[in-house]
Amino acid sequence: MTALQKLLHAQFQHQSRLCIGLDSELSKIPIHIRNHEDALLEYNREIIYSTQKYACAYKLNTAFYEQYGSKGWNILKESVSSIPQDVLSIADAKRADIGNTSSAYAKAVFQDLQCDAITVNPYMGYDSLAPFLEYENKMVIVLALTSNPGSADFQRLICNGKPLYMHVVETILSWKRNADIGFVIGATHPAELSELRTMAPDIPFLIPGIGAQGGDIEATMKANANGPVMINVSRGIQYAGDSIDFGEKAKNAAQEYCQKIGFHS
Amino acid sequence: MTALQKLLHAQFQHQSRLCIGLDSELSKIPIHIRNHEDALLEYNREIIYSTQKYACAYKLNTAFYEQYGSKGWNILKESVSSIPQDVLSIADAKRADIGNTSSAYAKAVFQDLQCDAITVNPYMGYDSLAPFLEYENKMVIVLALTSNPGSADFQRLICNGKPLYMHVVETILSWKRNADIGFVIGATHPAELSELRTMAPDIPFLIPGIGAQGGDIEATMKANANGPVMINVSRGIQYAGDSIDFGEKAKNAAQEYCQKIGFHS
Repeated sequence: MTALQKLLHAQFQHQSRLCIGLDSELSKIPIHIRNHEDALLEYNREIIYSTQKYACAYKLNTAFYEQYGSKGWNILKESVSSIPQDVLSIADAKRADIGNTSSAYAKAVFQDLQCDAITVNPYMGYDSLAPFLEYENKMVIVLALTSNPGSADFQRLICNGKPLYMHVVETILSWKRNADIGFVIGATHPAELSELRTMAPDIPFLIPGIGAQGGDIEATMKANANGPVMINVSRGIQYAGDSIDFGEKAKNAAQEYCQKIGFHS
Repeated sequence: MTALQKLLHAQFQHQSRLCIGLDSELSKIPIHIRNHEDALLEYNREIIYSTQKYACAYKLNTAFYEQYGSKGWNILKESVSSIPQDVLSIADAKRADIGNTSSAYAKAVFQDLQCDAITVNPYMGYDSLAPFLEYENKMVIVLALTSNPGSADFQRLICNGKPLYMHVVETILSWKRNADIGFVIGATHPAELSELRTMAPDIPFLIPGIGAQGGDIEATMKANANGPVMINVSRGIQYAGDSIDFGEKAKNAAQEYCQKIGFHS
């Protein structure tokens, strides 16, 4: 089964287009488990266990684990292995480097962590992404137009008559690949999402920026026009509760987001 | 002392503009130490010990350590701590993400690994780099025009009359910062290096692409016009020998590169 097939199957099974982000930090998890050994892992497992019915994917941002050094890397790996086999696991790593180096990153994420998908940065061009694209049954999700204010600095520069992010999407659509591809497009840009959906009707979009960053679900789903999509929510679900019932609170938040997003357009 | 002062001091002390890359992989280090416990760390320490007289900086590419999971992260950290205090340590990590995430990356590299400098990717704009730029006494080295063939795909797109990499350099020069900044410019582009040096006469450039990637030292040094610079060599030094005398071979290669690069223009 390809990564895209796995995603679509999970979406149908769970009637969900919700991707749950696990950007877990010791200073933000409930106080009562902070001092447990492997607190972050215990926390992630509880969130995954509680919310899995409502998720088509989990996205773990590598930064939050790397800040704890090698121990954090272990927690990341164990957390990925706690994600149910039929739900997509995404390493939100935003990597890319020259060819032989990207091969090592691909090995780290696809082989050591055993993730189904990775986010990558397009700035360094084809040979920096080729080592990821070689993997069959994996998904390579390329930053196109990100949700943050800084997306205006370079991604929106007009190059030969159209913005850089559009060149990125067009160019990458033309590249040879074994892996499935996807694009990151922030929920903070519904008009541009609509344009990009027209350019790439069948390509999965990973859409962050709902919740804490201010993106609107309804505008996003309308702009997406029922293309394959993962709507990511991190803080709004994982930190919905801060007490003994944080799993239950996260579950309720996930269910609510799942319904708001809807499955059929 | 700022990171730039530390670099310039190391360059003067060692009469060297050579940055030595440690992209260490188990399958490439000498066979006789591959089965040692902590083989990669032992290998890195020997390379650092043997070559330090000729280096102004060491650059460790995080990818090569991440591929070994949490054990690799430990080796990375221990290797950084083996670099002499008066030589610049660079995490070649090419990171960047939205603000709160980049803060975690900055913590990972500047606080956990205790590196003096990091390479970052500009695609996501100001707020993605701001958390790195906040650190005093650190150096943030931004990808401008990379050494690989894929640098032509997006970095050279003409936006409002000039190439994207030039917008990146100009824009980043205008940003507020506590940290020192630098730019990555591949040795494979001497004409563009010369233009960028004119735009940023006092900013340190990290120049990879000598050796395995085909960049020419003489053309590079001429184009750089005696601006502050680190010429990186990885494979050409660390894999100069493959036997019991690999440290000695690396030392000889480092000395040779150091002399070829020269200190005075």
